[in-house]
Amino acid sequence: MRIEPVFLFDLDGTLVDSVYQHVLAWKQALDSEGIELSVWRIHRKIGMSGGLFANQLVRETGMAIDDERLERLRRKHAEAYRGMADAIRPLPGAKDLLTFLTAAGIPWAIATSGRLETAAVNLAALGVDPGEVPVVTRDQVKFAKPDPDLFLAAAARLDAPIETAVVVGDSIWDMLAAARCRALGVGLLCGGYGASELQQATAFRVYDDPADLLVHIDEVGGRR
Amino acid sequence: MRIEPVFLFDLDGTLVDSVYQHVLAWKQALDSEGIELSVWRIHRKIGMSGGLFANQLVRETGMAIDDERLERLRRKHAEAYRGMADAIRPLPGAKDLLTFLTAAGIPWAIATSGRLETAAVNLAALGVDPGEVPVVTRDQVKFAKPDPDLFLAAAARLDAPIETAVVVGDSIWDMLAAARCRALGVGLLCGGYGASELQQATAFRVYDDPADLLVHIDEVGGRR
Repeated sequence: MRIEPVFLFDLDGTLVDSVYQHVLAWKQALDSEGIELSVWRIHRKIGMSGGLFANQLVRETGMAIDDERLERLRRKHAEAYRGMADAIRPLPGAKDLLTFLTAAGIPWAIATSGRLETAAVNLAALGVDPGEVPVVTRDQVKFAKPDPDLFLAAAARLDAPIETAVVVGDSIWDMLAAARCRALGVGLLCGGYGASELQQATAFRVYDDPADLLVHIDEVGGRR
Repeated sequence: MRIEPVFLFDLDGTLVDSVYQHVLAWKQALDSEGIELSVWRIHRKIGMSGGLFANQLVRETGMAIDDERLERLRRKHAEAYRGMADAIRPLPGAKDLLTFLTAAGIPWAIATSGRLETAAVNLAALGVDPGEVPVVTRDQVKFAKPDPDLFLAAAARLDAPIETAVVVGDSIWDMLAAARCRALGVGLLCGGYGASELQQATAFRVYDDPADLLVHIDEVGGRR
């Protein structure tokens, strides 16, 4: 028996350089609702499910955040984020990495906790057409990260067993979700987490960014 | 012999919640000069001397950045940062921590790699009057962090031996500068570094933010 790896990519902070814009877009949305939260705490929540984000907000701030307010926050975040869309660029090596995998015949897909309305901006920056590449967004699953549903759905789209999947992400939510479904997590520092944070969340390798991962791709199963 | 601790505080990311705004202000400045740099790499440079920042930029991007261009970048950063000044808030517990130290008769000072033009916004948010509290800025020393000059100057302003100083900061540059002058580094996570990054840079304790440090102040010499 051989394991033929497939690659499942997170989007924000992994393939496109958008985490810090998401952070300040959330900061603006929260400020406008009078909810005070330190910016680094927002940063550490990016990539997790919006519902869990809201639960953590309630616990950390002690404020009542009902569904209506949460929906308003989501809308304000999406608006603020789209206002920064011009500044969003692919991370170094992101396009090359995806091109390499395609050329090598290694299947890959994208799985993001974001909704299509915000992900569309990033996919455009990356030059990925969701009509051609399997892209799973928050809209298509019941639970987002750190639940494993997004990665399970992405592996299913590739018709690959989840145990053959290498999950590439920048946040501990990617790593936790990967471990939950027995995929293997590879961490990238380009979302702003420290290496140890990712390793403590079960990352089996950590690289700077997609360019650095591409240089070391044979370490994690990137050959056929 | 007893060591009577004095506290030397970094400003951005340590007492005020301004790191992420600095990061995106630098991003805007660099973009406007056509210099592409991933946002997380900017984040990891915040708090270091502008000259060293420029040296690292040259190495990482391979671009020629002369003094004139550096001065233009600095000006654009300062402009963009001041445009976000309304959003700058003290970090949780920052005012309480300083009030506690003052009430306990424990001397403290502020030492920042920033220039007074940007630091002024933060001091105002914090309610610190540089006419009353010793504040050492980049303008007053030859080398900024990770060189120890700022902390040496701040200790001198308190008339305290540097070996009695506890340096509180959010970045590895604070910790390295503290170690260089035999002060003791205490790391805070509220600037967005991971705990291990600070520990690997010699932090002897790490806390979430000023509020968390205040709860544990007796661990690091905060009693008389």
